[in-house]
Amino acid sequence: MKIDNLKIFSGRANPDLAKKICAHLSAPLGSVVTETFPDSETYVQILDHIRGDDVFIIQPTCRPTNDNLMELLIMIDAARRASASRITAVVPFFGYARQDRKDKPGVPITSKLVSNLLVAAKIDRILTLDLHAQQIPGFFDIPCDHLYSSPVIYDYLKKNMDISNLTVFSPDVGGLKRAQSFSKLFECPLGFIAKRRVSAEHVEASNLVGEVEGKDILLVDDMTETAGTLVAAAKLLRERNPKSVRAAVSHAVLTDKAYERLSDGLLDELIVTDSTPPSPKYADYPITVLSVAPLLAEAILRVHNNMSVTSLFKIKGF
Amino acid sequence: MKIDNLKIFSGRANPDLAKKICAHLSAPLGSVVTETFPDSETYVQILDHIRGDDVFIIQPTCRPTNDNLMELLIMIDAARRASASRITAVVPFFGYARQDRKDKPGVPITSKLVSNLLVAAKIDRILTLDLHAQQIPGFFDIPCDHLYSSPVIYDYLKKNMDISNLTVFSPDVGGLKRAQSFSKLFECPLGFIAKRRVSAEHVEASNLVGEVEGKDILLVDDMTETAGTLVAAAKLLRERNPKSVRAAVSHAVLTDKAYERLSDGLLDELIVTDSTPPSPKYADYPITVLSVAPLLAEAILRVHNNMSVTSLFKIKGF
Amino acid sequence: MKIDNLKIFSGRANPDLAKKICAHLSAPLGSVVTETFPDSETYVQILDHIRGDDVFIIQPTCRPTNDNLMELLIMIDAARRASASRITAVVPFFGYARQDRKDKPGVPITSKLVSNLLVAAKIDRILTLDLHAQQIPGFFDIPCDHLYSSPVIYDYLKKNMDISNLTVFSPDVGGLKRAQSFSKLFECPLGFIAKRRVSAEHVEASNLVGEVEGKDILLVDDMTETAGTLVAAAKLLRERNPKSVRAAVSHAVLTDKAYERLSDGLLDELIVTDSTPPSPKYADYPITVLSVAPLLAEAILRVHNNMSVTSLFKIKGF
Amino acid sequence: MKIDNLKIFSGRANPDLAKKICAHLSAPLGSVVTETFPDSETYVQILDHIRGDDVFIIQPTCRPTNDNLMELLIMIDAARRASASRITAVVPFFGYARQDRKDKPGVPITSKLVSNLLVAAKIDRILTLDLHAQQIPGFFDIPCDHLYSSPVIYDYLKKNMDISNLTVFSPDVGGLKRAQSFSKLFECPLGFIAKRRVSAEHVEASNLVGEVEGKDILLVDDMTETAGTLVAAAKLLRERNPKSVRAAVSHAVLTDKAYERLSDGLLDELIVTDSTPPSPKYADYPITVLSVAPLLAEAILRVHNNMSVTSLFKIKGF
Amino acid sequence: MKIDNLKIFSGRANPDLAKKICAHLSAPLGSVVTETFPDSETYVQILDHIRGDDVFIIQPTCRPTNDNLMELLIMIDAARRASASRITAVVPFFGYARQDRKDKPGVPITSKLVSNLLVAAKIDRILTLDLHAQQIPGFFDIPCDHLYSSPVIYDYLKKNMDISNLTVFSPDVGGLKRAQSFSKLFECPLGFIAKRRVSAEHVEASNLVGEVEGKDILLVDDMTETAGTLVAAAKLLRERNPKSVRAAVSHAVLTDKAYERLSDGLLDELIVTDSTPPSPKYADYPITVLSVAPLLAEAILRVHNNMSVTSLFKIKGF
Amino acid sequence: MKIDNLKIFSGRANPDLAKKICAHLSAPLGSVVTETFPDSETYVQILDHIRGDDVFIIQPTCRPTNDNLMELLIMIDAARRASASRITAVVPFFGYARQDRKDKPGVPITSKLVSNLLVAAKIDRILTLDLHAQQIPGFFDIPCDHLYSSPVIYDYLKKNMDISNLTVFSPDVGGLKRAQSFSKLFECPLGFIAKRRVSAEHVEASNLVGEVEGKDILLVDDMTETAGTLVAAAKLLRERNPKSVRAAVSHAVLTDKAYERLSDGLLDELIVTDSTPPSPKYADYPITVLSVAPLLAEAILRVHNNMSVTSLFKIKGF
Repeated sequence: MKIDNLKIFSGRANPDLAKKICAHLSAPLGSVVTETFPDSETYVQILDHIRGDDVFIIQPTCRPTNDNLMELLIMIDAARRASASRITAVVPFFGYARQDRKDKPGVPITSKLVSNLLVAAKIDRILTLDLHAQQIPGFFDIPCDHLYSSPVIYDYLKKNMDISNLTVFSPDVGGLKRAQSFSKLFECPLGFIAKRRVSAEHVEASNLVGEVEGKDILLVDDMTETAGTLVAAAKLLRERNPKSVRAAVSHAVLTDKAYERLSDGLLDELIVTDSTPPSPKYADYPITVLSVAPLLAEAILRVHNNMSVTSLFKIKGF
Repeated sequence: MKIDNLKIFSGRANPDLAKKICAHLSAPLGSVVTETFPDSETYVQILDHIRGDDVFIIQPTCRPTNDNLMELLIMIDAARRASASRITAVVPFFGYARQDRKDKPGVPITSKLVSNLLVAAKIDRILTLDLHAQQIPGFFDIPCDHLYSSPVIYDYLKKNMDISNLTVFSPDVGGLKRAQSFSKLFECPLGFIAKRRVSAEHVEASNLVGEVEGKDILLVDDMTETAGTLVAAAKLLRERNPKSVRAAVSHAVLTDKAYERLSDGLLDELIVTDSTPPSPKYADYPITVLSVAPLLAEAILRVHNNMSVTSLFKIKGF
Repeated sequence: MKIDNLKIFSGRANPDLAKKICAHLSAPLGSVVTETFPDSETYVQILDHIRGDDVFIIQPTCRPTNDNLMELLIMIDAARRASASRITAVVPFFGYARQDRKDKPGVPITSKLVSNLLVAAKIDRILTLDLHAQQIPGFFDIPCDHLYSSPVIYDYLKKNMDISNLTVFSPDVGGLKRAQSFSKLFECPLGFIAKRRVSAEHVEASNLVGEVEGKDILLVDDMTETAGTLVAAAKLLRERNPKSVRAAVSHAVLTDKAYERLSDGLLDELIVTDSTPPSPKYADYPITVLSVAPLLAEAILRVHNNMSVTSLFKIKGF
Repeated sequence: MKIDNLKIFSGRANPDLAKKICAHLSAPLGSVVTETFPDSETYVQILDHIRGDDVFIIQPTCRPTNDNLMELLIMIDAARRASASRITAVVPFFGYARQDRKDKPGVPITSKLVSNLLVAAKIDRILTLDLHAQQIPGFFDIPCDHLYSSPVIYDYLKKNMDISNLTVFSPDVGGLKRAQSFSKLFECPLGFIAKRRVSAEHVEASNLVGEVEGKDILLVDDMTETAGTLVAAAKLLRERNPKSVRAAVSHAVLTDKAYERLSDGLLDELIVTDSTPPSPKYADYPITVLSVAPLLAEAILRVHNNMSVTSLFKIKGF
Repeated sequence: MKIDNLKIFSGRANPDLAKKICAHLSAPLGSVVTETFPDSETYVQILDHIRGDDVFIIQPTCRPTNDNLMELLIMIDAARRASASRITAVVPFFGYARQDRKDKPGVPITSKLVSNLLVAAKIDRILTLDLHAQQIPGFFDIPCDHLYSSPVIYDYLKKNMDISNLTVFSPDVGGLKRAQSFSKLFECPLGFIAKRRVSAEHVEASNLVGEVEGKDILLVDDMTETAGTLVAAAKLLRERNPKSVRAAVSHAVLTDKAYERLSDGLLDELIVTDSTPPSPKYADYPITVLSVAPLLAEAILRVHNNMSVTSLFKIKGF
Repeated sequence: MKIDNLKIFSGRANPDLAKKICAHLSAPLGSVVTETFPDSETYVQILDHIRGDDVFIIQPTCRPTNDNLMELLIMIDAARRASASRITAVVPFFGYARQDRKDKPGVPITSKLVSNLLVAAKIDRILTLDLHAQQIPGFFDIPCDHLYSSPVIYDYLKKNMDISNLTVFSPDVGGLKRAQSFSKLFECPLGFIAKRRVSAEHVEASNLVGEVEGKDILLVDDMTETAGTLVAAAKLLRERNPKSVRAAVSHAVLTDKAYERLSDGLLDELIVTDSTPPSPKYADYPITVLSVAPLLAEAILRVHNNMSVTSLFKIKGF
């Protein structure tokens, strides 16, 4: 596969991820100035010649979301005006994804707004990872390559433990679809926890469905901020004597509250990816970071060469 | 509330519903020719003068979906060229709603395509009912009023049975959010059935969560075609001695297979709405049709008068 | 000329035509699932890998027009989301073409609407044949290759009869331009029939202009549904002792009434093309089907190779 | 009918027409500066306050076409930026209308381009008169009110001659549709002249269909530049002893050649409208100018008041 | 003037300004939730009923620019989906305005990008103040009301000093146009400072043009961040014995460096507006804040009532 | 660098420039019919086969501006419908550039309108020269290559005089930025003339800043029509005994008044480019025409080959 006239740039959201992607591709990371002026405005200048090139801009829209998003939009504008032949936004973490519905009067659908802003800045394609909702690609009319980090997690666990004793658990019913695909991928049983009203008086109670005792539990979710749902699930699971309890999430945007909760030891391991930049604090907690750089690198290479991205996932059961 | 310069038209998808809506509003149904030519092309002519009027076109895009959708698009084109000041598509059943994600390579997102087609025909607003996914309003950038038939079902059951013994059940986890809102509205317990892999060998088994014995069960779903999911759920529920098993769905697009299944008597009652035109065959089965005409009529009136549509749902718990 | 990264797909409107086109190009017909769900919704999945490919989708929008049109739109959406580099809609029969003007208050311009829908689904180009009106390409801002089947008809007649005795006739004045181009192509005389008011009382009478006696008459029109105009013209012509009376139309969308009229023997031969799928019933009538597959194949090849399509028509007099 | 917040402006194409329209409406003509700078650039300044007003800009795009068109576009831009609530382009003569098809390789469809330019300048509606082709309103997606001057011509002739002896003639087959509508309006016979190839050798001959002797002939066409077609038709008609030969065209854009031809006396009268500005030279020829100002004034008033424009034509037979 | 169905909302950029505007209008400030989630995403919910209302959203896009801009965009999305009839973005300070040209290869035109983003979020109008460049309204195709704070500054100085001894100075040639309009408004002399190359060796020297001695100098500029240009100009002016040196800028986005420079006492007074939120630190420096709230309030009222905004500036000399 | 599938066409604005460009490229000038019909409509037919080609259309929009602009738009429409793969408008003089701001109520922003018209006709890129305002590229969202003629002027003067004695002067402050870049390029001193109010009574006086005596003065501006500003500046300069006074402008659109003024001998030389077609009258005045054809040719070649256009300006100081 060729990499000529492929140009990769990174904003300031996650430059280490971009560097790793470039290393995998043996391609240089494009030269770009990205600064914040004293008045807080973002300044961008693409230093490489990109006329006629196939440009990929890597920028997860994680914290600080608005700055990262605007920087991405400004980089797109710069690339377009510099006559890039095609611009792909590589957004491994798609911020605002959870604001995808109007569940109350007076609220926006920010996720669609963000999609419209990217289109207004004139991207040609989007490449993203583990979106919160499967409908988000439909917010775009341009092609969207939607990648999954589950094979990366699968490879890691397969190498590091006996996965035959595994049970995948969804910490809530909203994530059951995701858990189902993990269960299919790992060829292992599935369980879940569901909150529901049990009577007119008791507004909410948690139900745990699935066998836990003696099992290696893998809780899966798309993202975690405060680790609240995961740790609550782990607590419930611990009551039934599992052999171990792990959690795997694609996107970690951890708050101080999360670190506090992780200190409780209810989770043996929290597996996250580097779709968002790993914090130095991770080292003090049982957090494992898996890199999605090889996955993204391969996808970029395939998009650039008009090859199938789906076939990236041609591992068994997927 | 005023109804001057409000004009309501109906395509051929569900003219009875349109008539009922007009009856509720004491407004005449607009005069329009809708024909199919021998070569199968659809022909439309709006006979009323609508220049400067606030036009509502009522057309669920149910079976025959493509004909009903095209008729709707053609009516919109006719209304726009006749200088309507505003055009609202009233689509109580939004066909193709389930094709809202790209779950396989090579598939379209037809639900988004249909949204784009409506916008290309140049509607100003959309008014719809019980969409399959909450993200679909985000497929539009125009305002979308999304109504729920649950209050209609609530009113019906409240009048006709003792709802204090009710338990709402979701026949699968995909519909759990909908069931939760029913449970909240009825202030009653919630249960659900979940299919999941139980071991590497047993690919799928059904789990039933929630108390059933002695309860009046209300299965809820957004739509049913073959009644397969509902009847399977009823069968599972019957094993646990419920007092009764009902199902309530917003949209019925019943096939022969559905009628066959309904003959088995596993459902004491199937409650549907007239978002799609009721079949004469309903009479031979325990099917109850609730009309959403008053709900739609009230919503149209409020949209026309710039009044809150949300307040339509200001019944307790909603 | 090269055919690499050329991908041809067919909807269900006229798969035989698509197969013939592919046979001419020695190119495989692309693999695509096209189904109708029990609820009447259309389902499409493109099975071939088409990323970066030059995709042609063959679908005349003949009967059932709305189903065929929607299937085409859905296939376009699927192809675009699968990252085709260019999508050309090949629409040998452009349904709704006659609804191209607002000749009455309250009517749509469905032909423009359909153009807008194709653009909303995001085609890059359109390739079509014998449009009802020459202005329809102007309904699009994308490039339109408008082919003519007249050279195919010319070749057939030249091989099968003495064309020096031919007179081309237009059955009405609306088709006179088309008949003129045939007359130029065949280098033969032209005649026509015109209905006109002859006095305040007699609202319509038919005038026949041109010599008929002893001539081989070729009536030409763009399409026929009921054969009414053609057979009425033939009757008028028969009164003047022609040697023979033939009719040639590009698009046949025959109704039962048409077959009935063809039984009368007033037409010695009805020449049609396979722009719409030929019926098995044709065999019982003096109907000759000429294939436009070679013409369309050549045009597709030339579009794919950026070669002149106009030069396809570089036969004398055209 | 009300005229508050109705504002009418005129470019420099036909200010007299605009003044007459305003006189009919008892409305002032809006104040606007329209100048040409020494470097040939057009300068516009709207002097009236028009915020929130319903603005009509009267500008036939006749000779000098490009200057008149650009002036119209610039006035639209000025009106929009001055916050007009609605802008209607009143274009009684739609220049470039005949370039409505791609009849040769390498040509534009300028008529569609002009439509796109008007939309790019952001008009809300268009009001036009006797378009060359009925498909042109389909070049727009905004509402188009298409007026006909035939009732104006009818009224004039009815007052000034005995119309019971009239025969309407089309000077060529392209205009037969238009002539048919006149024949219907006047309830009189119809005739036409058709050029056609009569044999392989004789490429073109003129056929005259219809009774002429002793009749008052009315040739009708949409426009004339050189009077060539009309005078050639008159010559042919004169051979058959008509009582008189008149011609009526909507749009006169006469060249010197036209005046020369009119001197020959073959036409007893040439009836034109003031859709284009009448020349002082008209006085020296048998040219009658009918004003479309009352018709346009009434149409503007009805558009402004959301009343039916179609009903303007509710005279018998139309 | 009426204020019914006028709704004013404020983001978090400058709520005090919004409150003052509402106080001037005796209109309530609309109720809206604006929060930042722990993951840094912005959350908005409009609590008022705004269906059919004329909505104004007040949000200068000052520091933190990206957060303020995104909050504005999200509020627009919420207002549109809540069926506001018209949405005006009131942006007294238009961030990124200085990035209005491509002065180097590889840079964006962020000012145009921001304009496109506002249009993508679907505002109907923009109301802004003292834009950095007069061309920015041309970045929009929607109407833009561009206000000037100079009359506010004029009123303040007229009340507080003898303006007959005033000389307006531009601190650089880029701002000369602005200074000229002040000089016209105050009917006083104009001076300026210009940096220019004086020889091949001396790349830059400052020239001061205009009389200074004994004069009250008013330096004017559109904005200041570090006060560098202003203080350098004041230093140069001080060498020529002015009576006093003041500076007036529309937009203050002061950094610590600015405060440091202001301590030097070279400026007797720095006059700023509250287009950006005044800092409590202002109190420790010779900074005077003039409120543009009355000006914005009046403009909003006039836009709402379709009255002239230009006439706001009908004070002498302007 | 390759020139295959590069096609260059010229409208009638400046065919000699186009021929020179083609000569520099050793590429043929494309064959196109451009005519004006007797009714003043423009007619275009592209005779070359351009399917899939990279098309450049050369047309400065100088006098007659509206005709040249419309011809350009029509050529673009023709090229697009003929399936050009990419269309670049090469507009060495961008007419209407000075109408780039709304400096009075009721005026348009014609410069933005023209940008929108070019985009509506669907160009892919624009290539232009010495725009009046640096913000105009921001009126477009498509890529714009903005060239400068200053290096051409530099080369000419360097060859023909001793530039070490040069001083660049701006005739007004509006052009100071341009003069600054010349001063940087020539590494020479800068001066300027500024009109300003000197007291409440004396509304305007001219200030001259910079050394003049014994210097070779080069006045620079972007364009001149009447030579008024240049000659007034020359007069002022002459009072201070310069060695010589020259003026260099990119675009000459000279009026009779200009020639009259040039007769006065105040300018030793007026240097212009052939961005607009040189007049035969130039020969009678001290006017030197420098050709921008080599510059435009090189830029076209680089755009076609996806090479840096910026590097065209890699001469010292630029």
